[in-house]
Amino acid sequence: MSKILVFGHQNPDTDAIGSSYAFAELSRLRGLDAQAVALGEPNEETAFALDYFGVKAPRVITSAKTEGADTVILTDHNEFQQSISDIRDVTILGVIDHHRVANFETESPLFMILEPVGSASSIVYRQFKAEKREISKATAGLLLSGLISDTLLLKSPTTHESDFAVATELAELAGVDLETYGLAMLKAGTNLAIKTADELIDIDAKTFELNGNNVRVAQVNTVDIAEVLARQAEIETAITKANAENGYSDFVFMITDIVNSNSEILALGQNIGKIEAAFDFELKNNHAFLAGAVSRKKQVVPQLTESFNK
Amino acid sequence: MSKILVFGHQNPDTDAIGSSYAFAELSRLRGLDAQAVALGEPNEETAFALDYFGVKAPRVITSAKTEGADTVILTDHNEFQQSISDIRDVTILGVIDHHRVANFETESPLFMILEPVGSASSIVYRQFKAEKREISKATAGLLLSGLISDTLLLKSPTTHESDFAVATELAELAGVDLETYGLAMLKAGTNLAIKTADELIDIDAKTFELNGNNVRVAQVNTVDIAEVLARQAEIETAITKANAENGYSDFVFMITDIVNSNSEILALGQNIGKIEAAFDFELKNNHAFLAGAVSRKKQVVPQLTESFNK
Repeated sequence: MSKILVFGHQNPDTDAIGSSYAFAELSRLRGLDAQAVALGEPNEETAFALDYFGVKAPRVITSAKTEGADTVILTDHNEFQQSISDIRDVTILGVIDHHRVANFETESPLFMILEPVGSASSIVYRQFKAEKREISKATAGLLLSGLISDTLLLKSPTTHESDFAVATELAELAGVDLETYGLAMLKAGTNLAIKTADELIDIDAKTFELNGNNVRVAQVNTVDIAEVLARQAEIETAITKANAENGYSDFVFMITDIVNSNSEILALGQNIGKIEAAFDFELKNNHAFLAGAVSRKKQVVPQLTESFNK
Repeated sequence: MSKILVFGHQNPDTDAIGSSYAFAELSRLRGLDAQAVALGEPNEETAFALDYFGVKAPRVITSAKTEGADTVILTDHNEFQQSISDIRDVTILGVIDHHRVANFETESPLFMILEPVGSASSIVYRQFKAEKREISKATAGLLLSGLISDTLLLKSPTTHESDFAVATELAELAGVDLETYGLAMLKAGTNLAIKTADELIDIDAKTFELNGNNVRVAQVNTVDIAEVLARQAEIETAITKANAENGYSDFVFMITDIVNSNSEILALGQNIGKIEAAFDFELKNNHAFLAGAVSRKKQVVPQLTESFNK
């Protein structure tokens, strides 16, 4: 059995790192030669979680082949443009994910467990449980962190009814108080002042192919939207450069208030009319408020997809 | 909760019918308003199984919208060109499948359980079991029939190690002897003499998009390859007509000997060189022997895909 690499998406967030770390462990318990790697450095929120539970950040790789691996398992993503550079040249053994499916295909049958739940970590946890596998404190802690991160502490509309019990059980296994630990971890990810504008727009960014357009949708979490908007000029310069360099038709930048659960949308690109139509709002000075929106996956991407397909 | 239609692929085989019938039942037990339908009439093998277990053939439909349904669950397939005509206009709630993934995408997250096992019926059975749901004799019988059909009574290389226990358990639940029932069911599907050539090439046929080409791959089961080859002229006429009418670039027709586990391949189309390269054989008078090949999914489609992508 050859080496199997397990990883989440590019620009990894805490769920990408947590779910891949834990699923690699589960795969080893199942007898596979699996190891967790990552397609980027952990962000500050993830670094907080890794540090808290004493886990070393997974090694960053950019190609499976150069690692001598021809078999991979994807967690927390399936779209090829969000995956490893040589995804089309390797065998995809399995996918654990909670996103829509697009730009994904295989030559052969595979394991694919997708559920519309709050995090990929939730799915990995239930697999440990179904197989009655022991779960270490650190693994439980990283899975919990993935769930907290993706659901903004169970407040996002992406939270599934089953996630509340998962969070309670994982907090118990990890030995932390859910609310206290969760808020501390989320706040660790909101220290945006130390980031350059180029870094800001890339902290948690994904590209979506919408009706032939490459649309970049990035999100930052904050406790103060105004503080981020104060840097609008330099952020716009960074976005304009990113659009030109990467061929993005549009860039949608979500500034999400994790305390009040709202977002400000800043958008630049060639299809501003479609973006405005998607959210039924009017951008003024390139930005607009989107009340109650915290989830890119549920409150932004489907709306953009529908609008771009019209 | 609106009505949910559960169905297998076009030109349904026994696994498509069995898995959709049983998964609709499981969905109802889970509280959903689900009903099994089919995208075509049952073939003779499936008709034998339905009759044996006293189950009425599922209603044939061609569009979900005209049935008043906007939500569907797919079993035994995922590729859109093998699905219902308006698949792009409805919400796909779930997929239970054991094929490769291709030409499939959704706007939103969904349930998707794919495993590289012998039949979609195997996966549905394990879900009944995991949830400790009671399984009726008829449902067990149809799931068993689906597994027997897709694995040619556990002889195909697509048979997964877990399928042997599944077959034994289902045979017990269905109250049949696995070998006796299985052979009788398979033989019921080999009465090809009563079929016209147009019918023959459509009994179990699927279209695959290979590097921009629409390649039709059809399979018939027989106990006598020579008997089918004796009708080569009329079969070729039917294939040439089908290619022209449906825009297939190529037609690959597998005549599979279910007793000795071999196939004769008859191929007509625009990419004969790629087809010959796929199997490392030379077609003579448009056909060639493929020793040991019984599985379209494992021994034909991946080889064609690789060859067409070169």
